[in-house]
Amino acid sequence: MKYSSCFAKTSKTAPADADSANAKFLIQAGFVDQTMAGVYTWLPFGLAVLRKVEQIVREEMNALGALEIFMPSLHPKEFWEATNRWDNVDILFKIHSQTDKDYALGASHEEVVTPLAKKFIESYKNLPFATYQINTKFRDELRAKSGVLRGREFRMKDMYSFHTSQEDLSTFYQKTLEAYVRAYSRCGLNVKVVEASGGIFTKNPSHEFQALTDAGEDTILACSTCEFGQNIEVATVKEGDACPKCGGVISTVKGIEVGNIFDLGTKYSDAFDLNFTDESGERKKVLMGCYGIGTSRLVGAIVEACHDDRGMIWPKSVAPFQVHLVTLNSKDDVVKEQIEGTASDLVRDLEAQGVEVLWDDREDVSPGAKFADADLIGAPLRVIISEKSLKEESVEWKERSSSESRLIKVTDVIADVIEFVK
Amino acid sequence: MKYSSCFAKTSKTAPADADSANAKFLIQAGFVDQTMAGVYTWLPFGLAVLRKVEQIVREEMNALGALEIFMPSLHPKEFWEATNRWDNVDILFKIHSQTDKDYALGASHEEVVTPLAKKFIESYKNLPFATYQINTKFRDELRAKSGVLRGREFRMKDMYSFHTSQEDLSTFYQKTLEAYVRAYSRCGLNVKVVEASGGIFTKNPSHEFQALTDAGEDTILACSTCEFGQNIEVATVKEGDACPKCGGVISTVKGIEVGNIFDLGTKYSDAFDLNFTDESGERKKVLMGCYGIGTSRLVGAIVEACHDDRGMIWPKSVAPFQVHLVTLNSKDDVVKEQIEGTASDLVRDLEAQGVEVLWDDREDVSPGAKFADADLIGAPLRVIISEKSLKEESVEWKERSSSESRLIKVTDVIADVIEFVK
Repeated sequence: MKYSSCFAKTSKTAPADADSANAKFLIQAGFVDQTMAGVYTWLPFGLAVLRKVEQIVREEMNALGALEIFMPSLHPKEFWEATNRWDNVDILFKIHSQTDKDYALGASHEEVVTPLAKKFIESYKNLPFATYQINTKFRDELRAKSGVLRGREFRMKDMYSFHTSQEDLSTFYQKTLEAYVRAYSRCGLNVKVVEASGGIFTKNPSHEFQALTDAGEDTILACSTCEFGQNIEVATVKEGDACPKCGGVISTVKGIEVGNIFDLGTKYSDAFDLNFTDESGERKKVLMGCYGIGTSRLVGAIVEACHDDRGMIWPKSVAPFQVHLVTLNSKDDVVKEQIEGTASDLVRDLEAQGVEVLWDDREDVSPGAKFADADLIGAPLRVIISEKSLKEESVEWKERSSSESRLIKVTDVIADVIEFVK
Repeated sequence: MKYSSCFAKTSKTAPADADSANAKFLIQAGFVDQTMAGVYTWLPFGLAVLRKVEQIVREEMNALGALEIFMPSLHPKEFWEATNRWDNVDILFKIHSQTDKDYALGASHEEVVTPLAKKFIESYKNLPFATYQINTKFRDELRAKSGVLRGREFRMKDMYSFHTSQEDLSTFYQKTLEAYVRAYSRCGLNVKVVEASGGIFTKNPSHEFQALTDAGEDTILACSTCEFGQNIEVATVKEGDACPKCGGVISTVKGIEVGNIFDLGTKYSDAFDLNFTDESGERKKVLMGCYGIGTSRLVGAIVEACHDDRGMIWPKSVAPFQVHLVTLNSKDDVVKEQIEGTASDLVRDLEAQGVEVLWDDREDVSPGAKFADADLIGAPLRVIISEKSLKEESVEWKERSSSESRLIKVTDVIADVIEFVK
């Protein structure tokens, strides 16, 4: 893709009111636009990252055997009254319609998925199952902050599971916990699993997932070897202790919560009278779990964990594109044509191999400004084609995560890039 | 995929209150669930169809050079006041937040995209461009009806284009019109292009796209050869006339509106003071177009156009899966194992070739009930493996759109299916 054909470009200056690295860089790089406090448009590059993150999460949920659905955001008031949350969840947006009906705007979807599941659950033969969606959530936060980390409207993957026994629920819960760790790892994050309270969802045990970054809001005591962690407020281990799980060393770190899972027990089954007939013909309550990952928040957490002073440093798995190709102008028309021809061939050949390339083809922008934009945008690999490099029949190769650059023969570029993006 | 592993199954009976074929079949087949009037959950098979429709639309928009973005559903009141639509669009959902702010819930996105575009448009060098999203829309309809055809919450692709001149806008408008016709055709619909009024969007010319089906709400005079059509209320042609475009024969038909496009002129540029500097340095208003396809409505229109008494008949391009594999039980354990082995191999080999297969592996369901479900679900091809067919070393092959079935040798099935789904 040619950068000249993308309307959403970088800004010369960072937004004045950015309160976090993700807000600063995502906005300045043209990845998101702030419509108002806590509400964003995902622009082409930002949407590309969000899609990749969501696809990784989707693949991990599918691997659990969960089926994807898509639930509505308009919820009947009665469903939220049934769970006693209409009046008790202060972040719930409420709407009064011209047909005189009251709706809640989906802040979470237990109130929709439980009555839905009830339509398909008759006996133990219909259980267990899990279903999930990736959708927009709405929460009437008193204070939106930290860019896409805490918005009033955000993206979330929420999965719900239904079981006949605590044992079956616990087994699935554990499998999901492991799938979460895999998903975060695939997104390039170092995540610790921390025991947590159930908040507005349940009084049963729950876990939250903390992405380690100095910008984190939460302080946790975490093992430096395995994924064990404890929130400092309830920690039973202290710095320097041996990890109770693997024997590694416990240290104090900062984290951003990027997901949580809850053993819901029968809280929602009780509210909606969700029962099944067991093998002996007895009617029993269905046990439920719920499992959330804020996917847009996850994008923000990746930026918090992966950036430097100059901009973002995307992990290859979620970068909007792998290669940022920069061509430098030449005053010599023949050389200029040679540079453009080399770039054009390279883009064609790389794209044919499935490599995503952004080509900064702008003619009225200085090399320094192009390099600054490449650093800000943060693609894993920058390839420069210039009069100077072509004299050596080469391109300049610079990885975003490294300060060094080197010349690579034009004839080697395709193979080297394919090796790099693997 | 095994049908036994899908929680959202068919119902024995159609919903009592279904007012349309799409409501009846989509709900009975377990493709959607009605949360409340005009509000639906898309269940796994329904979501598969919706995704395919949206991907076709996405590809056609990308081919126009439009870039995909994702805009929020919470809109600041001030933006809708700026266009004078806060008080004048009666289907606008309004929300009052606990922070004492008023929001509109996205019924359309001119109010978000125009201020967004303004941040990136300085001069003629930034123009033209087009951008689109595929997102949920909310409209406070007085009366929701006809299943997913008119909901209060629905899916839509909305594209917006920005131009320096009427000529440039008109050229892009015409290209989009042609892309729409291609998109509908790829979805298996016969669509006519009808001149329309601009409704709440503009007083400039606009076109709507009518999918031909006897269940249509609108009466149009349409050419039987080309895509020409006129709404009967404003028609200048009559039945039997020669088509003014191609000379074909005009006849009276029924249609469902499945999209519309608008030349917005400077309506929104005026409201938000969206200007550009032209080549002579003069500041001018940007010209805009907007282009909508209700993608969930499109799924409903496909059902209206493609069904019979027994259920849906999905066009191959948007079917949730191409092959509905039915295995029939045998009381003989050896034969039963043979049937399951053949089915299992077939599923594995077809999926390896990228063919999507639903395997109705249920053991406690009669052949008649399985066939009825296959007809209801409407996959293009039904393949039956039974004791009887295996005696002939064959499977039974029946296309949903045909009443005939025939035996095909097991060894030929893969090649024949791959030829069929091409």
